[in-house]
Amino acid sequence: MTDIKSFIRTIPHHPKQGIMFRDITTLLKDPKGLQLLVDGLAEQYANQKIDKIVGIEARGFVIGAAVAYKLGVGFVPIRKSGKLPAQTIQQEYALEYGTDVMEIHQDAIAKSEQVLLVDDLIATGGTAMTAVSLINQLGGNIVGCAFVIDLPDKGGANILLAKGLKVFSLCQFNGE
Amino acid sequence: MTDIKSFIRTIPHHPKQGIMFRDITTLLKDPKGLQLLVDGLAEQYANQKIDKIVGIEARGFVIGAAVAYKLGVGFVPIRKSGKLPAQTIQQEYALEYGTDVMEIHQDAIAKSEQVLLVDDLIATGGTAMTAVSLINQLGGNIVGCAFVIDLPDKGGANILLAKGLKVFSLCQFNGE
Repeated sequence: MTDIKSFIRTIPHHPKQGIMFRDITTLLKDPKGLQLLVDGLAEQYANQKIDKIVGIEARGFVIGAAVAYKLGVGFVPIRKSGKLPAQTIQQEYALEYGTDVMEIHQDAIAKSEQVLLVDDLIATGGTAMTAVSLINQLGGNIVGCAFVIDLPDKGGANILLAKGLKVFSLCQFNGE
Repeated sequence: MTDIKSFIRTIPHHPKQGIMFRDITTLLKDPKGLQLLVDGLAEQYANQKIDKIVGIEARGFVIGAAVAYKLGVGFVPIRKSGKLPAQTIQQEYALEYGTDVMEIHQDAIAKSEQVLLVDDLIATGGTAMTAVSLINQLGGNIVGCAFVIDLPDKGGANILLAKGLKVFSLCQFNGE
């Protein structure tokens, strides 16, 4: 099987010195890459009951909606503050400097629905944990958290696992 | 055929007095709605040669990537300024007050590639025309511009048509 990592471009020192930025746009723009990504994630959950896939703005939208289509389930966006037009619930989260707020529509998930959380990348896990909290507040059961890329050095996947969540990623990058 | 409009929620006076906001989150979260949307757009272009689908941040990501997956082509994001990590070209566009900038990666589209532009909604056409300009600057041939919703009263589709572009939308809302 073609290695999905070979489609991902690394941009050294972006957005700042010492950060190896993993750019999935080179994966997405390749027809074979996009198929590998969507099929790889969908396959992992093909035999599980899922009602909704939740994707986190903005790269999680690209991946989440395509996987939702493939699995024949609904797609729900989690957005930055002020972007969703109907009633929302909010959750604050920490940034490197200061805080920000993520939102989900109150009626996006019904109680006890089975939810798969999808994003492009798991690093420290801050964004994912905020999304988990929003889904739980609406009464959703989180079937799993799926990512294209895991950065194990950053520890986010372990934080999710420690909360009893199931985590899957298509590939991992260490400090290479 | 189920009417795709029945899945779209209208939020009166959002984000301000007099605006009827057409909310596609109710379409996306319904498994049947998401299938109708993606299949409806993909069907329209199934017999045309397309190399890339370009989606505009952020709702265009949801739709564009799923349609790209369905058609077996690559997906390219156009993003707000400062979000793309590699070399970009930029295009300024007018907002109600002031201006903003959209970007595309320089290597996102090769010369003479056949490109389908996708977004959730066409209103005045300002965003779409900015995206068209970016795609043309990279040498892409625009096969068509596809939207979930057209607001004919706002005139955007006619502006695209007047430029010789082909326009398709799954549904239209007038002042209803």
